[in-house]
Amino acid sequence: MTDTPPPSPAAPATPATARVVVTYCTQCRWLLRAAWYAQELLTTFHREVAEVALRPATGGVFTVEVVDGGTATTVWDRATGGGFPEITALKRSVRDLVAPDKPLGHSDHR
Amino acid sequence: MTDTPPPSPAAPATPATARVVVTYCTQCRWLLRAAWYAQELLTTFHREVAEVALRPATGGVFTVEVVDGGTATTVWDRATGGGFPEITALKRSVRDLVAPDKPLGHSDHR
Repeated sequence: MTDTPPPSPAAPATPATARVVVTYCTQCRWLLRAAWYAQELLTTFHREVAEVALRPATGGVFTVEVVDGGTATTVWDRATGGGFPEITALKRSVRDLVAPDKPLGHSDHR
Repeated sequence: MTDTPPPSPAAPATPATARVVVTYCTQCRWLLRAAWYAQELLTTFHREVAEVALRPATGGVFTVEVVDGGTATTVWDRATGGGFPEITALKRSVRDLVAPDKPLGHSDHR
């Protein structure tokens, strides 16, 4: 990937407002896992979310929240869901909040 | 890494407040690069920053900012710095803002 001069800025779409927050346990060394989820979500929703934040925490926590307009919705919580989200299911949960009309191709086929 | 039961939560240190924001151009496909910087910064500063956010943008942008207490400090801007930051230099810049007393080992030897 050579560093070609930057393309001209795309026509400004209405800026996305939703923010996804992945909170992960550093003691359990879940940074790599959290960063993977973040990159998957940004690959799919780079037009629909303003950002994906990675928040270090402790005590075995792993949550994914969607924050938009002051409302925070937990779309995954290890404490209740047990283990970690299946990526296409997680994408459907995020899509249903940030871009309900957005088809996800394979991720939409259960 | 088996999923052992979560360790008991560590004694609550004063919560970090600083936030690092990596804004990257999606047209230039710099998500991987941005996510790498985020993981490096979280590996080093997981006690000193509240979060590292990845913000998709367009038009060739690549910036790294430290936001703390309402103040945003740009520690890298491709438009002025040209190209991308050398990781140990970036860590020194972030350290100088979020944890000035924190030694960085090898990263401190220019």
